[in-house]
Amino acid sequence: MFRQLGLIGCGLMGGSFALAVRQAGLVERVVGYSPTARSRDAALALGAIDTAVDTPAAAALGSDLVLLALPVASTEVTLRAICDALARETLVMDVGSTKSDVVQAAAAALGSAQLPWFVPAHPIAGKAQAGVAHSQADLYQNCLVVLTPGAGTNAQAVAKAHQLWQALQSRVREMTPAAHDAGFAAVSHLPHLLAFALMNAITEQPNGADLLSLAGPGFRDFSRIAAGDPALWRDVLLANRLQVQEQSALFRAQLDALEHCLEHGDGAQLSTLISQASTARTAWKMGG
Amino acid sequence: MFRQLGLIGCGLMGGSFALAVRQAGLVERVVGYSPTARSRDAALALGAIDTAVDTPAAAALGSDLVLLALPVASTEVTLRAICDALARETLVMDVGSTKSDVVQAAAAALGSAQLPWFVPAHPIAGKAQAGVAHSQADLYQNCLVVLTPGAGTNAQAVAKAHQLWQALQSRVREMTPAAHDAGFAAVSHLPHLLAFALMNAITEQPNGADLLSLAGPGFRDFSRIAAGDPALWRDVLLANRLQVQEQSALFRAQLDALEHCLEHGDGAQLSTLISQASTARTAWKMGG
Repeated sequence: MFRQLGLIGCGLMGGSFALAVRQAGLVERVVGYSPTARSRDAALALGAIDTAVDTPAAAALGSDLVLLALPVASTEVTLRAICDALARETLVMDVGSTKSDVVQAAAAALGSAQLPWFVPAHPIAGKAQAGVAHSQADLYQNCLVVLTPGAGTNAQAVAKAHQLWQALQSRVREMTPAAHDAGFAAVSHLPHLLAFALMNAITEQPNGADLLSLAGPGFRDFSRIAAGDPALWRDVLLANRLQVQEQSALFRAQLDALEHCLEHGDGAQLSTLISQASTARTAWKMGG
Repeated sequence: MFRQLGLIGCGLMGGSFALAVRQAGLVERVVGYSPTARSRDAALALGAIDTAVDTPAAAALGSDLVLLALPVASTEVTLRAICDALARETLVMDVGSTKSDVVQAAAAALGSAQLPWFVPAHPIAGKAQAGVAHSQADLYQNCLVVLTPGAGTNAQAVAKAHQLWQALQSRVREMTPAAHDAGFAAVSHLPHLLAFALMNAITEQPNGADLLSLAGPGFRDFSRIAAGDPALWRDVLLANRLQVQEQSALFRAQLDALEHCLEHGDGAQLSTLISQASTARTAWKMGG
């Protein structure tokens, strides 16, 4: 399907993508760039990439598929750096958790020849441990991948992106960047913010370490996402801050309602509110 | 170690306890009571109990070990109901998530002969699906069990409780009821409240179902505890409301600090706050 993948960013997402497309036989060769020599070396050792290069442009050169797998704030500068190195009709995608800012960055950085071949993508995948060393070829299997092409995106590029992710057994869905960002503010970005706040609320207490020693499996699962990469989440939260703040306001109103029940000892209403949450969560199935 | 376990409450916690003590050879016979015929039948079918009875007192009669595994608000009325049926030196324990209220309930309900043999217990165990049908004999293996005996608790009863939980391969720890309740407000009760509030904030939006269809593994883990039993969590949150509200205020202050960074585009401070959370969560190990 492709000759060469230019992988820009060798972390969990990028490394797993490279392993997956190789295993699926979709590329012949992977050239990888990463800001640190350490992750480049790890990607080589893992067999995720064949060759490590020193610049994003060197990874793009000669590639007919390019994946950006870096914190979203780097999108514009990276696309500018590779723009001249991109061959005609090279499919370029990212994996960022926000899309309006990425679309804006691409419009600013890419020329009229390259922009139609940029298909913004967000695979909803992740695991407890980040870093290329934890890459796995099946990370994208059964996972949702949201594509946010615009009116100016080449139809052939969009079709290729669909085929590629489907070949990795992902479920592909198209959305507008705005709908994407609003949705993920609710189900991903805000939960991260809440998990960060809870961890800090505990560790700021004088007996924080004691408190953590009591925590069990509920806390383990609830707080897992608090271990996220600070640079990545700083970028996501800032890029999508209006939507995140809007979702936070809705959340605070619901927290107020629950605490109002505590304040007034209103067991009946408290039970009603918990039932609403419990019923919805019990009915929810990932990808259902 | 015991002849007969009187199990009062056949749910996930009670059913798993019965399976565990049987498997460890700690009891010869289990007599079970549960408010619904359905869970009594399920407990019988599962082999968790040998005999089902119609009242808590009937489960306590002839037992030298009694476990209360019911929502905490039922503690006082249940202890009153079994008090006269308890033989001398019968070890009575509960598994409730709050302890100050349970200690108070026991003091009000039990006589001077029975009260010293009541050892309040809180095993920090749980899983996604509640109900006796999901019971497992190894639920308490490697799990923390907090005991909150008081000055009036019989030393022999406390020693027996230690031995019993240790035989199930739990890690046993003693705390005061107040320290227990403050600690679990931080690491368990507040996280449940936040998870309930997030679910309700999403489902109250007109496109709530759409939003949930986007959610991935991070959301799955974060929101798992929102599926908790409404009656159980109503009781826990009301019983421990002062501590929960105190922890919620600390949480809100940290959420405010994070949102202040979003409001002012302060990436440096945002990154610092996320790093603090991420470092703490990465370093945390359950039971470590």
